[in-house]
Amino acid sequence: MAAAASSSLVSRAHLTTTRRAVSMALPPRSTARFGVRGRRGLVGCVRCQAQAQGSDMDGHYIRRCVELARKAAGHTSPNPMVGCVIVRDGRVVGEGFHPKAGQPHAEVFALRDAGDLAENATAYVSLEPCNHYGRTPPCTEALINAKVKDVVVGMTDPNPIVASKGIERLKSAGIDVRLCVEEEASCRKLNEAYIHRMLTGKAFATLRTTLSMNGVVVNQIGSGADQLGGYYSTLLKEYDGIIISSNFAETTTLPMSNETGAKQPLYIIIAQGEKSQLNIPFLKQECASEAIVLSDSPITVEPSGVEVLVLDQMNLESILQLLAQRGLCSVLVDFREAGGSITSLLNNFQEEKLVQKVVVELLPFWAVSKGPNDLAFGGSQSFPLKDVEHSEVNGCVLLEGYV
Amino acid sequence: MAAAASSSLVSRAHLTTTRRAVSMALPPRSTARFGVRGRRGLVGCVRCQAQAQGSDMDGHYIRRCVELARKAAGHTSPNPMVGCVIVRDGRVVGEGFHPKAGQPHAEVFALRDAGDLAENATAYVSLEPCNHYGRTPPCTEALINAKVKDVVVGMTDPNPIVASKGIERLKSAGIDVRLCVEEEASCRKLNEAYIHRMLTGKAFATLRTTLSMNGVVVNQIGSGADQLGGYYSTLLKEYDGIIISSNFAETTTLPMSNETGAKQPLYIIIAQGEKSQLNIPFLKQECASEAIVLSDSPITVEPSGVEVLVLDQMNLESILQLLAQRGLCSVLVDFREAGGSITSLLNNFQEEKLVQKVVVELLPFWAVSKGPNDLAFGGSQSFPLKDVEHSEVNGCVLLEGYV
Repeated sequence: MAAAASSSLVSRAHLTTTRRAVSMALPPRSTARFGVRGRRGLVGCVRCQAQAQGSDMDGHYIRRCVELARKAAGHTSPNPMVGCVIVRDGRVVGEGFHPKAGQPHAEVFALRDAGDLAENATAYVSLEPCNHYGRTPPCTEALINAKVKDVVVGMTDPNPIVASKGIERLKSAGIDVRLCVEEEASCRKLNEAYIHRMLTGKAFATLRTTLSMNGVVVNQIGSGADQLGGYYSTLLKEYDGIIISSNFAETTTLPMSNETGAKQPLYIIIAQGEKSQLNIPFLKQECASEAIVLSDSPITVEPSGVEVLVLDQMNLESILQLLAQRGLCSVLVDFREAGGSITSLLNNFQEEKLVQKVVVELLPFWAVSKGPNDLAFGGSQSFPLKDVEHSEVNGCVLLEGYV
Repeated sequence: MAAAASSSLVSRAHLTTTRRAVSMALPPRSTARFGVRGRRGLVGCVRCQAQAQGSDMDGHYIRRCVELARKAAGHTSPNPMVGCVIVRDGRVVGEGFHPKAGQPHAEVFALRDAGDLAENATAYVSLEPCNHYGRTPPCTEALINAKVKDVVVGMTDPNPIVASKGIERLKSAGIDVRLCVEEEASCRKLNEAYIHRMLTGKAFATLRTTLSMNGVVVNQIGSGADQLGGYYSTLLKEYDGIIISSNFAETTTLPMSNETGAKQPLYIIIAQGEKSQLNIPFLKQECASEAIVLSDSPITVEPSGVEVLVLDQMNLESILQLLAQRGLCSVLVDFREAGGSITSLLNNFQEEKLVQKVVVELLPFWAVSKGPNDLAFGGSQSFPLKDVEHSEVNGCVLLEGYV
């Protein structure tokens, strides 16, 4: 438990300017696994101290909620990632996050962690608490029962069956509720895929590709990109699904995240044209459920057991709707070759608002291609990419931007 | 002069770990303008002190020579850039650089700066001293006459009328000469264009272009790129010529460097096809000598006075040979549009070893183009770019690499 105490302190390093860390031995605990710290009461526990300075501290604690929430990246879908911190008398007395769909929400873990100390405390939560019975009871009731004094939320929930109802329920129970405006943007970014699905009924789509330095699409990724910590491995962990072409699936090892504990994405394989048979040689029979084939005509797939859906209209909009209906919030459209089935999906993506984000990896060589410009699609005219960021990864340059 | 003393100290900041700076008032001087410091003897001067530790210090002083040499970037062609430092008893007693073709060489300015203190001193020079009578007397004689003890050179001169002859002459006069191996690469990079012209008889060519984030060539440059300190303004200052298409010259302001004291590049305008008339509206009559038109058929050019050369073979190799014969060491091939006259020049540039360097600017937007891949030329297969570097400039990413 000493180790757990130590790691807890490390993860709060950004708060050390306002809180005093006290390291003490922790009693064993096995419950509340996704409560972040192990404690019961203030005796014999690790406690970080701070003077909560009203709303000045709200940003601090909401950022900590976001940090906690991200620990479950890639595991919560179709639910959002949520983190919660309980603060009493300027001290953090409970922390938690939502680990996985079907498991309790962040508030429950944080309240369990706080125990009796939740009474008269302030609960910080990155997303509005739910007020409905789903797979778990409403978090509003848990907060009311714990007798918290007030609740600070990072953003309201865009889910129509939640939106503002959680806040209303808390207020009606006499609990003061306020929005942490300064951190709303980071809370929105944390759950951009969940929010997009809620508002549009479609999965959030990111177009990923690799270019040579002269702008030609190349069917490879940069050195180390698919290893632990590599950008591609990280993307695969964070996305619920990955769209690839049948040509790619027939010839190449299926993409895998090498992140620790990663849940692999669903492989969404696009088969178009006259093809009546598809062999996915790198997919084992027992993993057939990890892939789904979308085709515009009947097709036989090996290994058997892979679900095949024949679509009347093979277009990105209907695919993203289908995936959202199946509970996928986010999908990576992995563009590996020009002129293939993925190209036709991406026509006019900007005008139809189908792709939300673009990730381009640039490799340090000059490629020769006689074809049409590989990425000359997206709309009828040029458009800016917003919030473009770039970084160097193993001698390559990675660019990310929003459509 | 106090200001000159101060700037001299600043430019030597990288040596402060091994040298002690002593700031004193400087007497006025008007001679030896391209000697770097103002002094006559050790009284009343700025002097930086160091214990010369044999060859350990050679790298330091050769790097200083390179730094001095670069002060004349864009002005020395067809000569190389050269810097010289004279060191006696661990003290820098003279510095100089070659400012411009026709002016004295770096050694002359540095020896003038050192005066009598050159006797028994070590002369550091980034390029082998010349041993022939050109527009100025040989530097070897100046070094011998000044009675320096030894000479450290950054690299031998690839010029066939110099190569190793300077070193031989010094040795025959009893002066010890050694090559600073550790800094040879930086000396070569300093004069990569000059060396290339000497060894191949062709101008050093850099292909520059701007891409959208999806790899489409766009006819624009990034915000601020042509302003003082912008990468494009700096390139224009450092290159002797710039190759542009007649379409570009007919419709757009001619590229200008905004660097302080910049010498503008020669405009080399490529006119191909049936065109019999070319109007360069942004070139004033009195500036006609700043441009040259290369055409594959007779053509009338406005303003009159612009030199027109009709080439039997309009290809990059003959153009680069022609420019080298005219004394240009370096030329920027500014690629602004696909499918134009510049595209045809660049076919197979890698296989024919015609382009030495590539500069690609990446703008944060997605462009739509129905044409063939704009930069799908260069050779019959892909090739790596070496020593690729990238940087951010005003929200764009700049990539540079060698072919």
